[in-house]
Amino acid sequence: MKKSDWSRFRKHAARPERIVWAVAEHEGRRSICPLGWKMNTSGSPPMMAVSVAPSRFTHGLIEQSGELALAWPGEDLAEATLLCGTRSGRDMDKFAEAGLTPLPGEHVKAPLVAECVANLECRVVGRLTTGDHTIFACEILAVWLHDQPKRLCVSCDRSAGYDILLDKDGRIFGAVKAD
Amino acid sequence: MKKSDWSRFRKHAARPERIVWAVAEHEGRRSICPLGWKMNTSGSPPMMAVSVAPSRFTHGLIEQSGELALAWPGEDLAEATLLCGTRSGRDMDKFAEAGLTPLPGEHVKAPLVAECVANLECRVVGRLTTGDHTIFACEILAVWLHDQPKRLCVSCDRSAGYDILLDKDGRIFGAVKAD
Repeated sequence: MKKSDWSRFRKHAARPERIVWAVAEHEGRRSICPLGWKMNTSGSPPMMAVSVAPSRFTHGLIEQSGELALAWPGEDLAEATLLCGTRSGRDMDKFAEAGLTPLPGEHVKAPLVAECVANLECRVVGRLTTGDHTIFACEILAVWLHDQPKRLCVSCDRSAGYDILLDKDGRIFGAVKAD
Repeated sequence: MKKSDWSRFRKHAARPERIVWAVAEHEGRRSICPLGWKMNTSGSPPMMAVSVAPSRFTHGLIEQSGELALAWPGEDLAEATLLCGTRSGRDMDKFAEAGLTPLPGEHVKAPLVAECVANLECRVVGRLTTGDHTIFACEILAVWLHDQPKRLCVSCDRSAGYDILLDKDGRIFGAVKAD
């Protein structure tokens, strides 16, 4: 073994990373923030945790509303993921800009995304400040699946095993290659 | 979209999941706990978060020592991952049982694993209790990489795109298929 650094480790071991969109709404403003940093964190009750940077507009909406939707983009939403990840919801409505269809949830005010493979309605039940992000621990109140299964959109690199969906501005999105 | 449930969502969207081993030591006892539930949670300083069930022997070692190593098994360690994930460190020394080589770290008492693709020395800097797990927020103090790159061991299913390394007792470990 040899001593290395975090950036080299991340090149080696941080991808592929399934992408999830954190979707939140508060007082009539809504936004979508694509994330790679998420994990399951409880089986009973079902919970996921996400890491969101405080600078993101969506971070404030989650803090203020205490709710969010976790929407999972499929391989047809690579362009929308890039748009939502590189523009700020302070300046635009991302649903309109990306041609996405908001749907009402049953438990949370945050809209679901009709085009996504899956949507989870979530209530924030815990938070922890880490170095430059906030961990939101999210209890999953309802699960919605799209009628048509699709491969999930992942953040990846050009190593073998992925169909590349988009390669722009240093970001590569793909889907695990089928046989 | 149609209403569904957590277990169906997890079948659909929880895999592949790179596996990491949480390795901890306290007062002469050490253990290895394979995890799928982990995420990056800070860029500066570098941090990762892991979710560990309190019932795991390693959970107590992390709590008591405030330190751990995150060791990343490659495709040659699927059997060792199964052993470490299905037996308890209360009853055995998993290094000996799985034929693994402990190496001293520079910052933490937790041993590194010589056979792993990468090892991260970590100090616990935050914790959050979720439903049935504990999130440990870990600052990364040092990064070690194996001399030979290997594909990482992932928890996967029998969908396309993976070379299956092991399929036993309901657990399937693989590596992303090369072209």
